[in-house]
Amino acid sequence: MTLPISFLSDFGYQDEFVGVVHGVIARVAPEARVIDIGHGFQPGNVMAAAMALTRAIQYLPEGVCLAVVDPGVGTSRRAIAAQTPWGFFVGPDNGLLSPAVAMVGGASKIVAIENPELRIPSEGSTFHGRDVFAPAAAVLASGQATIDDLGPVVPDEEVIPLLLPLPESDGQSVTGQTWWVDRYGNVETNIPPDALRSIGLAPGDMVTLRIGAGIHNLKWVTAYGDVGEGEPLLHVDSAGMMAIAVRDGRADDHFDLAEGVSVTMAARR
Amino acid sequence: MTLPISFLSDFGYQDEFVGVVHGVIARVAPEARVIDIGHGFQPGNVMAAAMALTRAIQYLPEGVCLAVVDPGVGTSRRAIAAQTPWGFFVGPDNGLLSPAVAMVGGASKIVAIENPELRIPSEGSTFHGRDVFAPAAAVLASGQATIDDLGPVVPDEEVIPLLLPLPESDGQSVTGQTWWVDRYGNVETNIPPDALRSIGLAPGDMVTLRIGAGIHNLKWVTAYGDVGEGEPLLHVDSAGMMAIAVRDGRADDHFDLAEGVSVTMAARR
Amino acid sequence: MTLPISFLSDFGYQDEFVGVVHGVIARVAPEARVIDIGHGFQPGNVMAAAMALTRAIQYLPEGVCLAVVDPGVGTSRRAIAAQTPWGFFVGPDNGLLSPAVAMVGGASKIVAIENPELRIPSEGSTFHGRDVFAPAAAVLASGQATIDDLGPVVPDEEVIPLLLPLPESDGQSVTGQTWWVDRYGNVETNIPPDALRSIGLAPGDMVTLRIGAGIHNLKWVTAYGDVGEGEPLLHVDSAGMMAIAVRDGRADDHFDLAEGVSVTMAARR
Repeated sequence: MTLPISFLSDFGYQDEFVGVVHGVIARVAPEARVIDIGHGFQPGNVMAAAMALTRAIQYLPEGVCLAVVDPGVGTSRRAIAAQTPWGFFVGPDNGLLSPAVAMVGGASKIVAIENPELRIPSEGSTFHGRDVFAPAAAVLASGQATIDDLGPVVPDEEVIPLLLPLPESDGQSVTGQTWWVDRYGNVETNIPPDALRSIGLAPGDMVTLRIGAGIHNLKWVTAYGDVGEGEPLLHVDSAGMMAIAVRDGRADDHFDLAEGVSVTMAARR
Repeated sequence: MTLPISFLSDFGYQDEFVGVVHGVIARVAPEARVIDIGHGFQPGNVMAAAMALTRAIQYLPEGVCLAVVDPGVGTSRRAIAAQTPWGFFVGPDNGLLSPAVAMVGGASKIVAIENPELRIPSEGSTFHGRDVFAPAAAVLASGQATIDDLGPVVPDEEVIPLLLPLPESDGQSVTGQTWWVDRYGNVETNIPPDALRSIGLAPGDMVTLRIGAGIHNLKWVTAYGDVGEGEPLLHVDSAGMMAIAVRDGRADDHFDLAEGVSVTMAARR
Repeated sequence: MTLPISFLSDFGYQDEFVGVVHGVIARVAPEARVIDIGHGFQPGNVMAAAMALTRAIQYLPEGVCLAVVDPGVGTSRRAIAAQTPWGFFVGPDNGLLSPAVAMVGGASKIVAIENPELRIPSEGSTFHGRDVFAPAAAVLASGQATIDDLGPVVPDEEVIPLLLPLPESDGQSVTGQTWWVDRYGNVETNIPPDALRSIGLAPGDMVTLRIGAGIHNLKWVTAYGDVGEGEPLLHVDSAGMMAIAVRDGRADDHFDLAEGVSVTMAARR
């Protein structure tokens, strides 16, 4: 049985990169179904793509995850494959895969993809999605090769982790940062609801939100409909994190927010 | 036999939303083929997406249509499923589905999707594409559930219609509006060719087009090649409506047109 | 056995065009797998899409190639299908298919798609992707029709070629042009490595690059890692052509380069 392949990249939609990877997979493993997780992530932004993959992974069919955001292509960074309870992960060793692998229970084995027989020969060396990662994902999906066939084991401690910023609490307030602005202008933070609960806050409470010198009072609601049209709100978003939104509006515009901005939440005095 | 699922949304291509919906479908109904109608519609623009769906529906394989443009997510708007001669439609009750459902012959049954067993549990409440609509579409496609299993019947008169602007004729001229500017700058109006025929116009005629204070004379042609390069024209477009185009050019730039602009067409004096 | 269909267009992602073509294929040939090569090419830019198709074709599964970049739709340009050692090509007769057809060994037969029974009737005449090309690709993929069923043979010499700019060498330097800026800002030229080798250059050499009045000295490297971060370089890219890049940066910004700019390469004095 051929495993489904879920494919994420920063290849975008203006060139033929995504289609070529699909082509390589179809040539090696014609039976493999490929699900595009998304390819519009900011070029080279490993953290944004790693977090998207972490949000997505539990909703994807178990099988092979092929992820390529690879600003270090053409340098000495490794290409790796990981075996996990969810299935296989294939991509560059730059932290991209780490949080999703951890989310599904961690890797029982990680190898460096070095077997030249499983690469597509190319005079150039800058399209590893096509020449290295796609063939590896396809042979794992179809069972034409095992993970051990790809190359030597890499010790866990040599794999590059992703350093995620964690929120900090002083018992009175929680300070974190915005780490995702979605297409609708919703602003997710790295603050989980439990961090607010630990300072005594609960859904229904008013929360004071500090952004730079600005101080705003928002209600922690469980549905957009709990505030009036055009009003801002705090809620637990679909990925389970505290997010700032505006009903029928854009929170990024409303608060002039981008990714990576420090925010502090506390009980309203 | 598993039905194909045709999927439209305003989720865009910068986040993982589209891929996650594909993942949920693949987990529930691994055999279901999913056709992406498009996901680049303007965020929250129910009318633009509803019209695109109406233009597309007759070309899609009969089965399940999953459409999510849902500015009211998180409010009390209903999630619905409709049974029609074409197949099933699944989406928010905000008018998005209405014209396509009417186009294929109307709904024999409409239900509110409320069965908690067919939802994906989530702490958040703002990604119904993932948690409500995708599972419903998948179980309908695979036959794991009937439409009655999804929830209670909703009377026709309670379903939200889409209010489409209609053109008006005074017997001498027809006034309508632009309602779609496509990627090539072609500008479709809401004026059907029959409305022009009813005031005595026919292909080959010169038509006077009024846009604001501007008056332009365009030929109603049957092919771009009937005018010279760079020249504007009127024609029946691929969706069967009168459209303003420029051969080898962009009509939106030529006439400074966007969607929603009033236009009047009449016989050239 | 149904052949896979690889599909390229300039339809973009904001309208439903791509989805409608998928729908037509699914209705005619439900078993056909469709691979999207990409649909974000610049509207009407036949040369850019033709070159992308040429770069992609060898990585796509043999079968049917459906390519639609068609600024001449609605004029007298022909719709054609070509039989090649790779499989079938379907698209407008405007040069779009020519270099990819040549790349896979040339066409043994080319026909004009004129059989009205294989077209989808439409009042409009401007969506041949839907009405002419998709049905033709689908019947070829499924074997419901042969290429001869589509229409009369077109003599080779009547098919529109794509005029590609060729680099010129004076024995001391090679002058060509930039012809692709990818999403990452890498700038591919039309100069193959053999042209540089023929003037005595080899990987590892310093190359003098003239862009307008500017003169730059770049190293011809085999991997980005061979230069420091932020430094520019010359290399053979993944399509086998000389390309200008910047490690961890954008060459288009660094050298203010777009597509179609004249560049000269020579040995550093």
